[in-house]
Amino acid sequence: MSTALADPSPVPAPGADDTLLRLAALIETRKPAHGGDPARSYVARLLHQGPDAILKKIAEEAGETLMAAKDLQHGHGSAQALVGEMADLWFHSLIALAHFGLSPADVTAELVRREGLSGLEEKALRKLQQRQQDARQQEGEAA
Amino acid sequence: MSTALADPSPVPAPGADDTLLRLAALIETRKPAHGGDPARSYVARLLHQGPDAILKKIAEEAGETLMAAKDLQHGHGSAQALVGEMADLWFHSLIALAHFGLSPADVTAELVRREGLSGLEEKALRKLQQRQQDARQQEGEAA
Amino acid sequence: MSTALADPSPVPAPGADDTLLRLAALIETRKPAHGGDPARSYVARLLHQGPDAILKKIAEEAGETLMAAKDLQHGHGSAQALVGEMADLWFHSLIALAHFGLSPADVTAELVRREGLSGLEEKALRKLQQRQQDARQQEGEAA
Amino acid sequence: MSTALADPSPVPAPGADDTLLRLAALIETRKPAHGGDPARSYVARLLHQGPDAILKKIAEEAGETLMAAKDLQHGHGSAQALVGEMADLWFHSLIALAHFGLSPADVTAELVRREGLSGLEEKALRKLQQRQQDARQQEGEAA
Repeated sequence: MSTALADPSPVPAPGADDTLLRLAALIETRKPAHGGDPARSYVARLLHQGPDAILKKIAEEAGETLMAAKDLQHGHGSAQALVGEMADLWFHSLIALAHFGLSPADVTAELVRREGLSGLEEKALRKLQQRQQDARQQEGEAA
Repeated sequence: MSTALADPSPVPAPGADDTLLRLAALIETRKPAHGGDPARSYVARLLHQGPDAILKKIAEEAGETLMAAKDLQHGHGSAQALVGEMADLWFHSLIALAHFGLSPADVTAELVRREGLSGLEEKALRKLQQRQQDARQQEGEAA
Repeated sequence: MSTALADPSPVPAPGADDTLLRLAALIETRKPAHGGDPARSYVARLLHQGPDAILKKIAEEAGETLMAAKDLQHGHGSAQALVGEMADLWFHSLIALAHFGLSPADVTAELVRREGLSGLEEKALRKLQQRQQDARQQEGEAA
Repeated sequence: MSTALADPSPVPAPGADDTLLRLAALIETRKPAHGGDPARSYVARLLHQGPDAILKKIAEEAGETLMAAKDLQHGHGSAQALVGEMADLWFHSLIALAHFGLSPADVTAELVRREGLSGLEEKALRKLQQRQQDARQQEGEAA
């Protein structure tokens, strides 16, 4: 956890949610309908090219995140390199959300809706239990 | 864009109302060293299994995000389904960050450090220009 | 699926010793329409669940291939582990092809159609040159 | 490239395995140690750049395969587009294998080693049964 999180300083740094919302607002201004110029702006160009261009970047950045994490695991690369790839992944996530008229607030609201971590865990455990039930039905059936 | 996010209230710890930071703090408590129990908690289990299990989930959730986006693009699925997959992607991103001793604040700080959107675009354009330079060097060379 | 695969001719059909074509022929028999039983066969189950289940596996196995490769690069893991993940990736590729009524022969025919490696390289270079042209148009335009 | 590829002879078309082996042999000649010239050849350039450049392409092409499949599922795109993306995915798989001194024959041998489809299914079912056992241990334990 970053020391900033434990920082007792009275002037809090902007929260993580805030930064994403601010970025989302900037991305919004890059939409063709809002005057974004594909010739001058990387984001405007991606939004102009459409969903496949944006989604391809998400696949690519997810792959780069995996590679940076593996480098770090094996004592190569750096934490900052992993942070940089994760930033790329989240940044292109925001562009995809914008393309579909969605906001990072929708994603964080979904995370809250799941009632925090226990809700998420509950969901994951339900999945596991479903698998268990499925697997039981297969017992004796599978060749 | 809840006003709560910008709430200057002096009492709550920085990020107390910040979904990503709050989730990260909860994930922190699921670490084996902090008493997380792999038998009771999905997050504790992933953290116990180690980076490959977590990173595999990132690859999987990135793929599911792509599929939900394509469904929405073609008039199937729903915006909420895409939001759900993005929530899964970000949630497992937080677990990966925790495994490596990092925080979502590190990622959003990197996004801020790039001086907002224009910095990110500048970086992307530098990449494009580098490619252009590379391509020029190849002119006449390529069979 | 190529008719050769279903050819009952006693003379070995082309590809009789061809692992990918043989696997594709086996996968074909696991289709629900061909009597594949989701309760007894992993492939029948995936085909029954539909494209999202199959494509999710491709995303997952691509991620595992990346991780096994990074392990090997850093002197961990093993060549056999990478081979195993690549086998999983190709195996699920075959299932996806089968779902869409395609054969690995279609993929290798496309590779041949590109006139071998030089054709593939030509295609990749055309992409690079397109990017170069794009980048040129942006010169002076980009802020 | 290979005259066999353009050979109009009535001899059956090369099998899928053969095509991959022939492509692998060509890729081998593009290695820096074998005189491959990064300035003239896309493959030589990727091999020169190293594993991250190759693996990033695998992530990207896996993502594009998913997108082409989803287009086809929803009645857009074309089977040929999916075949083209799968060809890209397999082609870059071959380059990755070459980088690590491996051959597509290693992958198809692994597929054979698993004793065909039933072996693969057996492995997948063992995984499911393991999950079932895991899930049982969690019963009553999970909050």
